Amino acid sequence: MIIILKDNPEEKQLDNLISWLKSMNLDIHFSKGESTTILGLIGDTSAVDMDLINALDIVETVKQVQEPYKNVNRKFHPKDTVIDICGTKVGSGNFQVIAGPCSVESREQVFEIAQGVKKAGAHFLRGGAFKPRTSPYAFQGMRAEGIELLLEAKKEFGLPIVTEVMDLSQLPLFEEVDVIQVGARNMQNFELLKEVGRLDKPVLLKRGLANTLKELLMSAEYIMAGGNEKVILCERGIRTFETATRNTLDLAAIPLLKTKTHLPIVVDPSHATGIAHLVKPMAIAAAAAGADGLMIEVHNDPPHALCDGAQSLTPEAFADVMDAVNAVLPHAYKG
Amino acid sequence: MIIILKDNPEEKQLDNLISWLKSMNLDIHFSKGESTTILGLIGDTSAVDMDLINALDIVETVKQVQEPYKNVNRKFHPKDTVIDICGTKVGSGNFQVIAGPCSVESREQVFEIAQGVKKAGAHFLRGGAFKPRTSPYAFQGMRAEGIELLLEAKKEFGLPIVTEVMDLSQLPLFEEVDVIQVGARNMQNFELLKEVGRLDKPVLLKRGLANTLKELLMSAEYIMAGGNEKVILCERGIRTFETATRNTLDLAAIPLLKTKTHLPIVVDPSHATGIAHLVKPMAIAAAAAGADGLMIEVHNDPPHALCDGAQSLTPEAFADVMDAVNAVLPHAYKG
Amino acid sequence: MIIILKDNPEEKQLDNLISWLKSMNLDIHFSKGESTTILGLIGDTSAVDMDLINALDIVETVKQVQEPYKNVNRKFHPKDTVIDICGTKVGSGNFQVIAGPCSVESREQVFEIAQGVKKAGAHFLRGGAFKPRTSPYAFQGMRAEGIELLLEAKKEFGLPIVTEVMDLSQLPLFEEVDVIQVGARNMQNFELLKEVGRLDKPVLLKRGLANTLKELLMSAEYIMAGGNEKVILCERGIRTFETATRNTLDLAAIPLLKTKTHLPIVVDPSHATGIAHLVKPMAIAAAAAGADGLMIEVHNDPPHALCDGAQSLTPEAFADVMDAVNAVLPHAYKG
Amino acid sequence: MIIILKDNPEEKQLDNLISWLKSMNLDIHFSKGESTTILGLIGDTSAVDMDLINALDIVETVKQVQEPYKNVNRKFHPKDTVIDICGTKVGSGNFQVIAGPCSVESREQVFEIAQGVKKAGAHFLRGGAFKPRTSPYAFQGMRAEGIELLLEAKKEFGLPIVTEVMDLSQLPLFEEVDVIQVGARNMQNFELLKEVGRLDKPVLLKRGLANTLKELLMSAEYIMAGGNEKVILCERGIRTFETATRNTLDLAAIPLLKTKTHLPIVVDPSHATGIAHLVKPMAIAAAAAGADGLMIEVHNDPPHALCDGAQSLTPEAFADVMDAVNAVLPHAYKG
Repeated sequence: MIIILKDNPEEKQLDNLISWLKSMNLDIHFSKGESTTILGLIGDTSAVDMDLINALDIVETVKQVQEPYKNVNRKFHPKDTVIDICGTKVGSGNFQVIAGPCSVESREQVFEIAQGVKKAGAHFLRGGAFKPRTSPYAFQGMRAEGIELLLEAKKEFGLPIVTEVMDLSQLPLFEEVDVIQVGARNMQNFELLKEVGRLDKPVLLKRGLANTLKELLMSAEYIMAGGNEKVILCERGIRTFETATRNTLDLAAIPLLKTKTHLPIVVDPSHATGIAHLVKPMAIAAAAAGADGLMIEVHNDPPHALCDGAQSLTPEAFADVMDAVNAVLPHAYKG
Repeated sequence: MIIILKDNPEEKQLDNLISWLKSMNLDIHFSKGESTTILGLIGDTSAVDMDLINALDIVETVKQVQEPYKNVNRKFHPKDTVIDICGTKVGSGNFQVIAGPCSVESREQVFEIAQGVKKAGAHFLRGGAFKPRTSPYAFQGMRAEGIELLLEAKKEFGLPIVTEVMDLSQLPLFEEVDVIQVGARNMQNFELLKEVGRLDKPVLLKRGLANTLKELLMSAEYIMAGGNEKVILCERGIRTFETATRNTLDLAAIPLLKTKTHLPIVVDPSHATGIAHLVKPMAIAAAAAGADGLMIEVHNDPPHALCDGAQSLTPEAFADVMDAVNAVLPHAYKG
Repeated sequence: MIIILKDNPEEKQLDNLISWLKSMNLDIHFSKGESTTILGLIGDTSAVDMDLINALDIVETVKQVQEPYKNVNRKFHPKDTVIDICGTKVGSGNFQVIAGPCSVESREQVFEIAQGVKKAGAHFLRGGAFKPRTSPYAFQGMRAEGIELLLEAKKEFGLPIVTEVMDLSQLPLFEEVDVIQVGARNMQNFELLKEVGRLDKPVLLKRGLANTLKELLMSAEYIMAGGNEKVILCERGIRTFETATRNTLDLAAIPLLKTKTHLPIVVDPSHATGIAHLVKPMAIAAAAAGADGLMIEVHNDPPHALCDGAQSLTPEAFADVMDAVNAVLPHAYKG
Repeated sequence: MIIILKDNPEEKQLDNLISWLKSMNLDIHFSKGESTTILGLIGDTSAVDMDLINALDIVETVKQVQEPYKNVNRKFHPKDTVIDICGTKVGSGNFQVIAGPCSVESREQVFEIAQGVKKAGAHFLRGGAFKPRTSPYAFQGMRAEGIELLLEAKKEFGLPIVTEVMDLSQLPLFEEVDVIQVGARNMQNFELLKEVGRLDKPVLLKRGLANTLKELLMSAEYIMAGGNEKVILCERGIRTFETATRNTLDLAAIPLLKTKTHLPIVVDPSHATGIAHLVKPMAIAAAAAGADGLMIEVHNDPPHALCDGAQSLTPEAFADVMDAVNAVLPHAYKG
C-alpha cells in the first residue's frame, strides 16, 4: 500500500499516522519528492482500512499495490485448483456442464429432465428448491421437498446435484447436496459465506449483478478463509444500461480471473442473457474463451416452467448446445 | 397485462394460452388489429409470470400495465403512512434524522456520539453491531455486545435505536431494537424479508446497489405481504460507472417513489457519496427534494473509526449539517 | 404502437388525440376493457413521438410493438448484407480481420505493421490518422499526412484501408479510403451520420460506450436512410461499473443483432478490454459467437506506441491470434 | 505520477524507461522498498501516456497523483470564474435560469414562451434549432431558420439566447448567439471542442450520458486550452441501469466539481429525469445543492411539442418552479 501525502503535512498528524501504522506491524518506507511525500507500507496490509487513511487531512490519496485477497490469489497458489465431486473433476481443463430446470416442480419433471441432460452429456444436475423471486407472489420453490426430489434423481441417474441455498438456516437440508450454490443476490451475504466456509463441500459462487471481479474474489476469500477450499466461481452476467438482454455477459472475466486466481470458473449463459436462443452462441463463446464449464437451464416444457421459462431449453435443444460446445472445446483458449 | 401476439398465431397454442390464463381467474379482452392481435388480461395479474408468457412461440411481447405491488402501492393506500417509533413519528412531513457511528466500537464511543447527535437534534441513534465488510479480514462488528451498548445508550440518552441485521438467525438479538435495518446487500435476501415481515417492528429497507426502484418496492412488498406495515425506504446511492463518488445518489427517487408508494423515504448521504465533505450538500438537497428524513454517519474521531471513516462527520460538523437542513426544510418540495 | 389510456379519459382530449393521430395517416383500433382502454395504431408509426403521447394527461403508457428502424431491419431484408470492398467480401459468413496500429506514427511504422499483419492473414489495414483523445495534451494523430501514409501502405501491400473520421469537414480527405470508421464517441453524431449516409462508401459504425443495441441500429438507420447501404456494425465494449477491463465486451450483441438486422457485425477486442493479453481469448470467443470479423490493434513496438499501447499486440502475437481464430472458425455459431 | 515497478525489473528495460521519461523533461525520484520499487515523476506529466507505461513488462501499475487538467483546475485558479453574458453574470453565486422550448417550432411558439419565461423570471432563453434525434425520421429542427427566430425573440424580449451546435460546420450561423451549447452526445466531439475553444463566446458544455466528471473536466480543458475561458458546465443526468427516469441525475456532481474547478455549473432537471412532474423537485434540490443555475424546458403546449414533450412544463408551471427555487436559494449550500 502506498500513501501519498499532501504538501507540507502537519507534523503531529504525520507522527500519529506513522505510529498507528507501526502498531499494525507494518514497516514504512519514506520517499520525499520535491512536492510529494510518499509512504510505502511493507508487510501484510490486508487489514488496513484504505478509506480511513484516505479520510485523514494530511493524505492526498492511498493506492493499493497488492491484491487484498490471499487464499484465492494465483500468486500464492500458481497451480489450478481441481475439485473432485463424486469422481468428476472440476477445474484445470476438465470441462463440466451443469444442467437442469430453474425450479424443481415435480418428480416427473426432474426425472424427465435429468434423463434428458444425462443422455446429452451433462455432468451435474441442477435445480432450484429454494427460489429467490423478486415478487412475494411468485412461486417460491418446493423447498425441502425439492431437495428430496433432486436427491432421488441423483440416485436414479447418477448425476451429482447442484442447488441453491438462500439462507444459512437452510444449510442442514443441504447435507447430501453435492455442490451448494450461493446465488448472485447472496454473493455479499457475508454471514452465509462464513457458514459455507466452515463446510467441507464444494460451493458454486455466482457473481452478483453489480459486483466487480475483485469483489467476487473477496467473497471467495471469505469462504476460503473459513477453511473451505472448494470454491467454483460463476460468471452470470452483470447489470448494465442495456435492456435487450436481461444482463450483460462479461466473458472477458474468464481469462482475467484466470490470471488472478487458481479457482475454476464456469459460465451461466441462461441467466446472463434471459433469452433462450442466445444460450447456444454464448455457451460456445464461453467455452472458446476458456471457461471450465457451463451451467444451463433445461426444461422439458419451457413455456410452462414455473419460472424463467424464457431462458430455458428443451433437452433436445440442450443436446444440440452440447454438440456445438464439444466441437469448439479442442480449439478453446488455453491461457 | 397486455399480451401482443405474433402475426398468425398457431391456433392450438393460442387456445392453450387462453385456457391457462382463464385457469388463473383472468378475464381476457380480445383485440384484433390488421396485423396484430392483442390480449388484455383483466383481473389480478400479480402472480402471472411475464417471462413465461414471453417465451411462448406465439407471443411477440408482453407489457405490464399495472404495478406488480399492492400493499406498498399508493393507488390503493392514498394516504401517507406514518410510523410511530417510541413517540417519534416518521413519514408524511415529519422529518427525522438518524445519526451515529458506522460501527459500534466501545461504550465510550457510542455514548460520546449519542450525546453529540442528540444535542445537535438527531431523533434516532444508529450504529452497526453486525457489519457487512467486503474483506473477511476487516473488522466485522462487535455483534451482540454492540447491540447491548446501543441499548444502554438508548437508556441514557432517550434516542430510539436503528441497527442492521445481516442474517435472520440474528433476529432474536433485535428484540429491543427500535428499527431493524435491512442493508443494501440484503435488499433481495428474500428469506430475511419474509422473516422481518412477520415482526411487529419498523424496518428500514435500504435500496440495493444495483436495484431499480421497482425492485425496492417489490422488496417492501415482501415485508408488507407478511403483515408488517412499518416499512421505511432508504435511498443510499446506486452503482454506476462514475468512480469520483462511491455511489451515485439518486435524489429523483424521492419524488418518484412518493407517487408510487405511501411509505416514508429517508436518504443516506454518507454511504451514497463516501466523501465527508459531500454529506452536507447532499443532506440539504435530499431535504429540499422532499425526503422524510436522513441517515448520517457521525463519529467522534473520524480518522480512527474502524470503518467508513472517510464518510463520517464529527458531532460538530453534524450539528452544522442539522442547522443547514433545518433552514432549508420549510422551503422543501411538498409534492 | 399501442396507447393505453387512463381510466375515464377526458373526452375532448381523447378526441384531440385521435384526430391528431389520424392526421398522421394512422388507423386506430379501439379496444375497451373493463378498466383500460387501448388504442392500437396501425400504419407507419416510425415518425410518431412516443414521449409526446406519453406526456398527455389521458395516457397511462405507450408501448412500441414494431421496431423503429426499417432499412436495417432483417424483417424487411431477410438476407444477410454482403459488402464487397476491393474484392474482399464482408458479411454472411465471410470472416474478415482488420488489423493495424491505433495511430499512424510514421511510414516505417505503418509499412512494418502492414507487412506483418498481411503475412499473418489480415484482410484490411487499419490505422488512426485523426485520433479522439480524452486529453487535449495527448497526441492527436498525423491527420492528412496519416491518411497519405495509409494509402501508400495500401499500394505497397494491397490491403484495403479502414480509418476513422472525426468530423464531417474531414470527409474530403477520405475519398480514397476504403472503409470510413465512425468511432464510438461519434455514434450519435447525427450530422456526421447523415453525411456518410450520402456517400457510396462502406462505413464501419462502432457502438457508443453507453449506447443500446437499439440505438446502434437507429444510427445505422441514419446512414441507410441517406442511401448508403454499406454499413458494418462494430461491437467494442460498453461502459459499466466494472473497472478491471476498460469496457465490458458484450458478445451476446452478436447473435442478438443478427436476429434484428442483416448487416455484418465485427468485434474489436482491443478497445473492449484495453488489456493486451485479453485480446486473444476475446477474439476467439467473438469468432465462436458468430461475428463476421475482428478489428485488432497491432503495433510493431507496443510499449512505445503513441497511444493505446496497453491493448496492442506485436505482429507475432497477432499471427498467433489469427491461428487460434482460424482454428475455431469452422466450429463457430452459425445462427 | 507514480510508477510502481514489478519485482526485479529487467535492468535494460528500466534504463530505457528512465531515459524516455527524462527526455520528456521529468525528474525522477527513486524509492526502493523491500519488494517494490517506485518511481515518482516530478514535473509536468500531463502529456505522459499512462496506458503506454502500464503496458511495459517491468511495470506493475501507474498511478496519477495530479489531475490531468490545468486550465479548469481550481488549484491553479482558486477564484470562481464569473462570465458576463450581455450584462448577466454567471458563476460564483449568481444564480441564473435558462428556459425555453426543446425545439424551436414557430415564431408564435418562441415568442409566447419567451414572454412567459421572462415574466416568470428566467434570465436566458433556450431553444433547439438543430436537434439531435435518435431516429432519422423524427423532427430534426428548423436549423438556420430556428436560430433566426431565437434572435428575433431576443430582440423583442431582451433575453440572451442559448442554443445547441451539432457540428462545427454550423458555427458560422452561431455568430450572434450568446451561449453555444455543446450537447451531451458531443461532449467528446474533440474537433468541435477545439473549434469552440477558438471562439470568444460562452460555451455551455453538457456532461455526456456515460462520461465521468473527470472526462467532463478534460473536455472543458479542450475548450480552455484553445483560449476560450468562458465555459459553463452542465450536469444533465447519466445513463444507469435504472429505467424509471430517463437518466439518473447526479447532484453530488455539483459540490464535487466545485472543489475541482472554478467554472460555473448548471443543472438540467428536464433531460435528467424526462418526466415533467420531477422537474420541480429536482430544480429545488439542485439549487439547494449549490448549483449556479438551471436549464429548464418550457413549452406553451407540452403535449403538442415536437420533441421531449414529456419533460417540459407550461410557462405557468415554470413560474411555480421559479418561486420554489427562489425560496430555497437563500438556504442553499455555499461550499
